[in-house]
Amino acid sequence: METYPITIGGVTRHVPLIEPLPGRRIPLVEFLGDPELVRAAAEALKPLVPKDTEVLFTTETSPIPLTHVLAEEMGLPYVVARRRRRPYMEDPIIQEVETLTLGVGEVLWLDRRFAEKLLNQKVTLISDVVSSGETMKAMEKVVLRAGGHVVARIAAFRQGTPGLEVLTVAELPVL
Amino acid sequence: METYPITIGGVTRHVPLIEPLPGRRIPLVEFLGDPELVRAAAEALKPLVPKDTEVLFTTETSPIPLTHVLAEEMGLPYVVARRRRRPYMEDPIIQEVETLTLGVGEVLWLDRRFAEKLLNQKVTLISDVVSSGETMKAMEKVVLRAGGHVVARIAAFRQGTPGLEVLTVAELPVL
Repeated sequence: METYPITIGGVTRHVPLIEPLPGRRIPLVEFLGDPELVRAAAEALKPLVPKDTEVLFTTETSPIPLTHVLAEEMGLPYVVARRRRRPYMEDPIIQEVETLTLGVGEVLWLDRRFAEKLLNQKVTLISDVVSSGETMKAMEKVVLRAGGHVVARIAAFRQGTPGLEVLTVAELPVL
Repeated sequence: METYPITIGGVTRHVPLIEPLPGRRIPLVEFLGDPELVRAAAEALKPLVPKDTEVLFTTETSPIPLTHVLAEEMGLPYVVARRRRRPYMEDPIIQEVETLTLGVGEVLWLDRRFAEKLLNQKVTLISDVVSSGETMKAMEKVVLRAGGHVVARIAAFRQGTPGLEVLTVAELPVL
């Protein structure tokens, strides 16, 4: 298996190269299962989070540990938009993600109980990798629909050129 | 909204009561977004993890922060079985969960690259809530199919009577 070295916060991992589209190879960053890498990334992202942030907002699944560690470090709560409807959801916010990157239509689901945690709050969006920026745009729409205010958009890695401004600390190549 | 007090590791939350089946109400524990509750639960679970454990194994999504914090505390890696096929998966282990609790068929997906991390390892299963135990049984099958050895099954909360032995530190009522 071919690998590629990625580094964040002084920690390096040799990750697999995957080919999501023919002729387009990208390194597959995996934060799930790797506490050391998550800790390093959270430390690197911490200075980018605006001081007046009241809640972090992320999506299922891979950015969850990063957001969790960052939230605990900063003493903040966080909210997670789900990728599937859960049976307990009541009157959820449903937001489509306009992405072709994964070749499938994606939808963000946010239960009303969690949407209420964003109301009138200063919200910083957190992701692991931003590429087209379409997921980030959908996250922003969810926050707006929940009555919150986005104060920053932050991702650990940038890959290509996102269609909106996102603060990042490291870059992934498209090979 | 009616709530119910749940306590773990000395931390109490008043959580919503949901009604997954008519006439059967249960408290909805939510670890996602709550670093303090996750930290308390991880500290409470730590003594239950066998000393010879080499890797923790959990499932998407809600048990991820708990497993992550526990893994970091103990200096262990962990592996997450996904609930959906991801585009990058190669030759994944696909395991059905025989559950009626959620009213939908569930499947665990484990990419071959992560299955390899379980091979010949002593594995402790981690969950947030165990009720029927069917998800835990499916997790155990995944570990066995990956060539690992289950040394313990642990969940933060027990709800009802699971169909297999699971170590827990707190109980949720079925009201």
